[in-house]
Amino acid sequence: MLRFECDYAEGAHPSILKRLMETNMMQTPGYGTDDFCKSAKEKIKKICKNENCDIHFVSGGTQANLIVISSILKPYQGVISADTGHINTHETGAIEATGHKVLAIKSGDGKLKAAQVQEVYEAHINDPNHEHVPAPGMVYISHPTENGTTYSKEELSALSDVCKKYNLPLFMDGARLGYGLAAADNTLNMNDIAKLCDIFYIGGTKVGALFGEAIVITNPALKKDFRYNIKQRGAMLAKGRMLGIQFDVLFEDGLYFEISKNAVELAMLIKETCQNKGFKFRYESTTNQQFPILPNSLIEELSKKYAFYPWEKYDENNTAVRFCTSWATAKENVQALVEDINKF
Amino acid sequence: MLRFECDYAEGAHPSILKRLMETNMMQTPGYGTDDFCKSAKEKIKKICKNENCDIHFVSGGTQANLIVISSILKPYQGVISADTGHINTHETGAIEATGHKVLAIKSGDGKLKAAQVQEVYEAHINDPNHEHVPAPGMVYISHPTENGTTYSKEELSALSDVCKKYNLPLFMDGARLGYGLAAADNTLNMNDIAKLCDIFYIGGTKVGALFGEAIVITNPALKKDFRYNIKQRGAMLAKGRMLGIQFDVLFEDGLYFEISKNAVELAMLIKETCQNKGFKFRYESTTNQQFPILPNSLIEELSKKYAFYPWEKYDENNTAVRFCTSWATAKENVQALVEDINKF
Amino acid sequence: MLRFECDYAEGAHPSILKRLMETNMMQTPGYGTDDFCKSAKEKIKKICKNENCDIHFVSGGTQANLIVISSILKPYQGVISADTGHINTHETGAIEATGHKVLAIKSGDGKLKAAQVQEVYEAHINDPNHEHVPAPGMVYISHPTENGTTYSKEELSALSDVCKKYNLPLFMDGARLGYGLAAADNTLNMNDIAKLCDIFYIGGTKVGALFGEAIVITNPALKKDFRYNIKQRGAMLAKGRMLGIQFDVLFEDGLYFEISKNAVELAMLIKETCQNKGFKFRYESTTNQQFPILPNSLIEELSKKYAFYPWEKYDENNTAVRFCTSWATAKENVQALVEDINKF
Amino acid sequence: MLRFECDYAEGAHPSILKRLMETNMMQTPGYGTDDFCKSAKEKIKKICKNENCDIHFVSGGTQANLIVISSILKPYQGVISADTGHINTHETGAIEATGHKVLAIKSGDGKLKAAQVQEVYEAHINDPNHEHVPAPGMVYISHPTENGTTYSKEELSALSDVCKKYNLPLFMDGARLGYGLAAADNTLNMNDIAKLCDIFYIGGTKVGALFGEAIVITNPALKKDFRYNIKQRGAMLAKGRMLGIQFDVLFEDGLYFEISKNAVELAMLIKETCQNKGFKFRYESTTNQQFPILPNSLIEELSKKYAFYPWEKYDENNTAVRFCTSWATAKENVQALVEDINKF
Repeated sequence: MLRFECDYAEGAHPSILKRLMETNMMQTPGYGTDDFCKSAKEKIKKICKNENCDIHFVSGGTQANLIVISSILKPYQGVISADTGHINTHETGAIEATGHKVLAIKSGDGKLKAAQVQEVYEAHINDPNHEHVPAPGMVYISHPTENGTTYSKEELSALSDVCKKYNLPLFMDGARLGYGLAAADNTLNMNDIAKLCDIFYIGGTKVGALFGEAIVITNPALKKDFRYNIKQRGAMLAKGRMLGIQFDVLFEDGLYFEISKNAVELAMLIKETCQNKGFKFRYESTTNQQFPILPNSLIEELSKKYAFYPWEKYDENNTAVRFCTSWATAKENVQALVEDINKF
Repeated sequence: MLRFECDYAEGAHPSILKRLMETNMMQTPGYGTDDFCKSAKEKIKKICKNENCDIHFVSGGTQANLIVISSILKPYQGVISADTGHINTHETGAIEATGHKVLAIKSGDGKLKAAQVQEVYEAHINDPNHEHVPAPGMVYISHPTENGTTYSKEELSALSDVCKKYNLPLFMDGARLGYGLAAADNTLNMNDIAKLCDIFYIGGTKVGALFGEAIVITNPALKKDFRYNIKQRGAMLAKGRMLGIQFDVLFEDGLYFEISKNAVELAMLIKETCQNKGFKFRYESTTNQQFPILPNSLIEELSKKYAFYPWEKYDENNTAVRFCTSWATAKENVQALVEDINKF
Repeated sequence: MLRFECDYAEGAHPSILKRLMETNMMQTPGYGTDDFCKSAKEKIKKICKNENCDIHFVSGGTQANLIVISSILKPYQGVISADTGHINTHETGAIEATGHKVLAIKSGDGKLKAAQVQEVYEAHINDPNHEHVPAPGMVYISHPTENGTTYSKEELSALSDVCKKYNLPLFMDGARLGYGLAAADNTLNMNDIAKLCDIFYIGGTKVGALFGEAIVITNPALKKDFRYNIKQRGAMLAKGRMLGIQFDVLFEDGLYFEISKNAVELAMLIKETCQNKGFKFRYESTTNQQFPILPNSLIEELSKKYAFYPWEKYDENNTAVRFCTSWATAKENVQALVEDINKF
Repeated sequence: MLRFECDYAEGAHPSILKRLMETNMMQTPGYGTDDFCKSAKEKIKKICKNENCDIHFVSGGTQANLIVISSILKPYQGVISADTGHINTHETGAIEATGHKVLAIKSGDGKLKAAQVQEVYEAHINDPNHEHVPAPGMVYISHPTENGTTYSKEELSALSDVCKKYNLPLFMDGARLGYGLAAADNTLNMNDIAKLCDIFYIGGTKVGALFGEAIVITNPALKKDFRYNIKQRGAMLAKGRMLGIQFDVLFEDGLYFEISKNAVELAMLIKETCQNKGFKFRYESTTNQQFPILPNSLIEELSKKYAFYPWEKYDENNTAVRFCTSWATAKENVQALVEDINKF
């Protein structure tokens, strides 16, 4: 079985394992206060061109999301999110478990528009019963989205502007950030993101690491005492260096960006193949997730050899599916898939 | 600086890193449903002599504690714990953040006595105002405790009996379980623990792993839907195999127990040296943490060369300190320390 | 200004105030353990024809909802509700504040259909990623709904059946229960409701009381330790007798049902008037809330003299509004309103 | 049975019932936005000599405590309280249910000392592991305390100073505030309290009202969006006027202070009688709760005729008990009790 059903099917980039081996018996203090973490943070600050941001490492995306969001909101506030947002659909109510409603907004493609945030906020403050409804307290976006789509610099700037206007911190879930930056139509760099978002995280789990996400806080108002929140939610790794070492390797000599390209290039192979065969797509993705709408008979055939995810019924005879590539995807696997699609 | 201030100063046992390398590019499904996890679970079941227990892997101890406790308690219930318990003193209110009070009981040595649990429970149900107080809903113990002390089979049986009598699930935090089982005066084995506790966890972070704890559920009533709780609290690792691989190695050919002995043997060297010098101890520990009461002048001297933890002021001239050893502690480091103490 | 904007604009039924006066200086024990509460409970049991139900009084509807729901759900579970449900739209995230997601289902008229519950539940358990989504743990309905609509005996039975099949407790929010039972097309009685729901509450605040709701628990599994939950959420009134006295009066000689009729009769006057004028309705309500779609010019005119609630824009020239009547509504006020509509 | 076991055994002061009758059929808007509430707030502001404070009415003390505390604390913060504080001992973990640990400090008499707050705060920030412990985020006191003791102006000023120094909002639970102000040794007035506390509440439930507490916020930083919190916790009464009317009556012509005196005078009768008989007291109370240590034989005798609360075993033959008086206590009842004590 060749796996295209997710972007976390393999271990870590070999350079990471190598570094773990080399540093294994060195003694360091715990809880992320070691020199590996320091070094990794310096590299990330440099890439963000922001010397003053705070950086914290945690084990996974749901952890990052719930810690960030619960640290920002007041008890009566909710977080605005696309209805397709990971926090609204795939985290078993993790945000609600910290006491907050996800204020889900209809999204066709996984993205949130500045105008939508404005509309929701204005509707709230103009509602005579607004005290009977959770107040919007921040905005959550994912980039790339769960549907593989991305924000342009223009779109993100517009979102950032409206968020600043209404004093709503803008939080970007970058679980697949590398794959967004590697997209052919990408117009954002790390410095843009650091400028336009109040807080975001750089995904490691899906982009080369064994596990781990780097939370970057650029808004000074959100920095205070953040480590308490990490500890309270069970996300402060005793051997914090594990996370430091991984991000130190990932952000050495541009490795993070380099390995992201592989995923996107191979995804484009799949995309083009499907396009050439005349298949439509559920979403217009330029990143490592592709959502072609395939005939059920082809899906059945491919399922014998490849693992991938049925996404949504399209009609009686066709279904949208998801193929994921990653930093680790072997070109020969994609070539095999592409050939089998072409044979159809 | 030679580090004795904690038992998580190094990376992982080399066999674990070796296995991570060997398996790195294999493709597996996510979220702990892979074969490595399966294999590790089988080994743990065998050692527990319990084919029917459920096993789940999470990243760290606070995570394990908050997930287990919040999954068991009803909203109005609290968890009985020694006042020295990790959940009461070192988790930034993680249990309270899930809505529950820690019902802390005075403990001189880190242990909870069966009679204390009985007393607290009886006092509660006989209180005419009991509805105005959180109801005791379960019992938390750590073994070894935060003070290095351990439960005998007799003591644990007595606790188990009183818990069964009052229908209070008994939960053992085994963050340092290996070091407890390796103690010279140990009378418990894994099967005893599996029989006497309703739920417990086997610590990996402090005993050979990069990170990770194995939660073992023996009480069938506590098994249902446990994975939802893991996911909701942000503790379900996408690459769950990382945890499976580590525990698979640790429970192969008794490695976990073997490496635990190293820690305890070296701790005993420190203990005997202090005893021979006539120093008293804050707690009577037979495990990898030692709490000698040392003259401040000696502490000052040792601090130049060794990292260790000041625990508690004893009197004007003496302070209790903590020395930790671990599976990774080098004998020569302990010998150096011991010599320096002897020189005093 | 004549008020039709809510059903809680006046104080209490005079019989309640009279009883409060008569009993004022009597001494009773606190927290709802007094004889007035006992007597009120007996009356409610009799009317429900259920000797074994448990009854608890609390101050208001949001309180009742959050206590009931948080007492039933496990941490990872959510509550199924119509998207129009009070808990989803008018309680400032009170349910989320207790840690649970409201699983909102599209509803055109405020009602939830048995088929919808079945579909949601089946979709959940058949989702391969179901552990990544909050599990449905119970069903919340309001009767009458926030839109004035009601469940027929047949509909409620179907809901009850599907809930029993899936082991989902069925909870009815009866904030306006009296007005539902007084509807011309009503097919339910208190005994039906007690049989078909696992737990429900009888609204006092909107039906004759100063404040207060009576929670009735018929499912034995939901009864245990309920008072702890009431106390923990700050809903256990020290002078619990205040609630007992009020419900004792309301359920004496059918007063509750009698006064409910007034509201519905007067609402029907408004309904018929609007119908005769050819106005359409946003919802087909047979209870005390009416939602006619009125020309904006008429609304402007009426607003000078009457308080009522703009509900929803219909088109450029028309808006759906809400008129509420209650047990206290004066017939002459309705006659004035009706005349003014007729004049248009 | 003559009741001295609590200060909420009767209904409301007759003037309140009278006003409820007079205003019963007036129509008002809901949720505390009516003119009765406005009028009551004006009166309280005047008495506090503070035109800029915000005032909110809620139904009960636990509600007031949990709303105030959860609105102020950040998720990782706890509230400092005497271990005897109501929030720590009689609210079923209501504070923990909102996610926060009560940081309980040993108190002999129910009071918290400025030096204790300083010590706790300094210990926290100087703890190298402070991120592993909930941070002190505010201070809770009750005045009079649960033990009947009171703060002098000097003591409250010292507390206020240390709280300001450490940026810890000071919150006073004034469930029995009237009885504290009526004490012979009282040195505080409402203006002092408004100046020295950041937020406090004036208890109605135990001092003349049917139910209700008035939360007064003097620190501007704590005012924003407070009503959202009230609504979310289920404490926003639909007929908010019920609370407004009650406090409007209580603060008309000093009624609140007047009726408080009755309680204290009668309590002093009990106190003096016990003193004259040579009985000691568990606490030195100058307010409406008295805690004499009585011979068990006397307690047995009195129990036949009077309801009162056994507080704490003193020795084999003696037990501390609690007698409560209130605004409603009849002098003849106290005289009967006093005579029966004297007969002993």
